Amino acid sequence: MKKRLRVLQFGLGAMGSKMVEMILKKEDLELVGAVVKPEKDGRDIGELLGWKKKIGIKGHTAPDAFRNLDADIMLHAAVSHVPDVWKQIRGAVHARINIITIAEEMGFPFVKYPKLCEEMDDAAKLHGISILGSGINPGFAMDLLPLTLTGILHSVKKIKVTRLVDFSPFGPAIQKNIGIGFTPVEFRNGIKEGSMPGHIGLSESAHMIAHALGWKLDKLKETKVPVIAKKSIHVHNYKTVKPGQVAGFDQRLFAFEKGKLRIVLEELGRVDPEIEYKNIIQIDGYPSLVEWMSVPTGKLTTTAHAVNLLPVVYNASPGLLTMLDLPVAHALKDRK
Amino acid sequence: MKKRLRVLQFGLGAMGSKMVEMILKKEDLELVGAVVKPEKDGRDIGELLGWKKKIGIKGHTAPDAFRNLDADIMLHAAVSHVPDVWKQIRGAVHARINIITIAEEMGFPFVKYPKLCEEMDDAAKLHGISILGSGINPGFAMDLLPLTLTGILHSVKKIKVTRLVDFSPFGPAIQKNIGIGFTPVEFRNGIKEGSMPGHIGLSESAHMIAHALGWKLDKLKETKVPVIAKKSIHVHNYKTVKPGQVAGFDQRLFAFEKGKLRIVLEELGRVDPEIEYKNIIQIDGYPSLVEWMSVPTGKLTTTAHAVNLLPVVYNASPGLLTMLDLPVAHALKDRK
Repeated sequence: MKKRLRVLQFGLGAMGSKMVEMILKKEDLELVGAVVKPEKDGRDIGELLGWKKKIGIKGHTAPDAFRNLDADIMLHAAVSHVPDVWKQIRGAVHARINIITIAEEMGFPFVKYPKLCEEMDDAAKLHGISILGSGINPGFAMDLLPLTLTGILHSVKKIKVTRLVDFSPFGPAIQKNIGIGFTPVEFRNGIKEGSMPGHIGLSESAHMIAHALGWKLDKLKETKVPVIAKKSIHVHNYKTVKPGQVAGFDQRLFAFEKGKLRIVLEELGRVDPEIEYKNIIQIDGYPSLVEWMSVPTGKLTTTAHAVNLLPVVYNASPGLLTMLDLPVAHALKDRK
Repeated sequence: MKKRLRVLQFGLGAMGSKMVEMILKKEDLELVGAVVKPEKDGRDIGELLGWKKKIGIKGHTAPDAFRNLDADIMLHAAVSHVPDVWKQIRGAVHARINIITIAEEMGFPFVKYPKLCEEMDDAAKLHGISILGSGINPGFAMDLLPLTLTGILHSVKKIKVTRLVDFSPFGPAIQKNIGIGFTPVEFRNGIKEGSMPGHIGLSESAHMIAHALGWKLDKLKETKVPVIAKKSIHVHNYKTVKPGQVAGFDQRLFAFEKGKLRIVLEELGRVDPEIEYKNIIQIDGYPSLVEWMSVPTGKLTTTAHAVNLLPVVYNASPGLLTMLDLPVAHALKDRK
C-alpha cells in the first residue's frame, strides 16, 4: 500500500476550509493539523471552520506545528505576495516539510523576486523538500493548460486566454473589493488608491508561458476598466446593482516581444447570472487551435488543484518549483 | 546554451515526413539521420521524402544508424503493435538511445503485454534511457488532457471523451481502410475479416485513465458501426460517396468498474466537410466540467506532440514511461 501523506493546513479561510474538506475525503491523504494563531491553539479544526462536528484534529501555533506533527507537506492558503509567503513558510521548510501555496505571486515568482527565489530554492534544496505555487489561476487556466495545448502544435505565434469569471457566489467583502455596485468614478478611484485591488497573477502566467516557449518579453501592459450594468442585477447575499453602476471588471494583460504581441490574458469578472461563464484559449500557430471550457467556481478548482498536487509535489525533486517541472496532477481517489 | 538533441528518425511515411520537417525547424533539435531499409541506405532524407531539395542528412540501415550517429533520441513512426515496436527499437535501446514511438499500443502497453513491458523497462533502465509511446491519441486527446482537467476537480465519477475526426484529407489507402464509399454490408464484413481495422488505442487510453484515477476496470466493451451517407459527399482525392454508402464510422469503448460505467471513449470518423470537427471532454464529478477543442488534423498534432516531447523524454528518468510520468510538453522554439 502507498504511504498516506501527512498534510498540514496553513490558512482556514474560504480556500482553506474547502481544502480541509477535500483532504479528509482522500484515500492517500491524512490531515495532521492546521497552523493557527495563538488564540486558536489546541482547538478542533471542525470547530474553527464553523462545522457542526469536531473532526478530532487540532490547530497548533506555527513553530510547534512544523516541529511536532511529522507533516510531509503543508498546504498554504493565507497571503498573495512572495515576501509574506516566505515569512510564513520558512519555518516549515527548515523542518523539512514540502509546501504547496496558492499565493498568486508564487505561481512564477522568478521575475519579480529573483533574490528571494534564490533564497527559497537554496533552502528547499538544503532541506530536501519542494516548494510550489499553484492554484487555478495562476497555475492552470492561463498558463499550464494553454502550454499543454501548445504541445500538440508545430509552432506558436501568439496565445490569448479569456477567463469569464462568475463573482456572484462570493460574499460582500469580495464584491466591495472588486467594486460591484459602485459608480464608475468610485471604481476608478478605488483602483488608483489601491482599495480595489485587481486580480493578481496575470503577469506570473505570462512569464511562465514566455519562459516555456522561449519568448523574451520586453513589455507588459496591464489595464483594468469597469463593466457598467445595463439592467438591474440582483447579487445574492449582497445588493441589487442598478443600471449605470459597476457590475464587473475587465482586467487585461498584453505582453510583447520586440513589438510583437505574444500574449493576451483577460480576466473578465461579472456578477450577471445570465452569462455563460467559460475559459477560452486561442492559440495562433501551426496549426491554430481554439479551446473552450466551462468554468466551475474558482474556489472549488483552486482548492482541488492544490490538493491534487500534494502527491506530485511530495515526489518531486527538491527546489522551488513551477507547474512546468511536474507531471500531471490528476484527481485523487476518494476514501471508500 | 542548451545542448542540441541529436535526433534519429525511424519511419519516413506520412507521419515521419511531418516529423522531419518539424525537427529541422527547431532550435534545440538536430536531425542526424534516418533508419531505412538496405535499398535506401546512404540516400538523402529530402530525396527519400520526395522533396525538391536534399537536406544533407542521410538514411542508414538499422544497426549502423544506432551505433554510428551518436543519436540522443529516436523518433519511431512505423508500426502499431508492441511486439513489432520492440523488435524495431531494441537495437537502439542497447545503443543507449532514448525512444519516442507513436505506435498506438505503446501509449499504455502494460495491460496487454505485461511480460514484454517488464523486458522493455529492464532494458531501458539497464542502458539508462527512456522509452515513451505517445501521439495525439493515445497520448493526449483521450487520456492526458482529460486527466489534466481532473486535476482541478475535487472528485470524478465518469469521463466521456468524444473525438469527431475529419478523415477527408487522407489518401485512398486510408479511405479504403476505414470503408469510405463501401456498402454497409462490405463495411461489416471488412471489420469481421480484419481488412478494415478500427482505430487502435481506445483501450490503452482507458487503462491510462483508470490507472491514474485508481479505477479497477473489470469490463471493457468496444463497438464499431458504419455511418451511412444521407447525401452525396465528394471526398477529395478519392471518390464521391453516394447516399446509402459508408461515409464514416462510430467506434466506441465502454469501460466498467463493478458494473459502474466509468469511461466512454468515442472515435467518430467522418469525411463530410460541412461538419464542425472537435474534441469534447465531459467529466462527471464535483464539480462537473465540459471542455471543447477544435481539432487540427491528427497528422499535425500527432507529429507535433511526439517532437515536442523529445527534450522531456531525454531529461526523464530511465525506464518504460507513459505520459503520466512526464512534465508538460510545450511547443519547442523555432530556429531563427
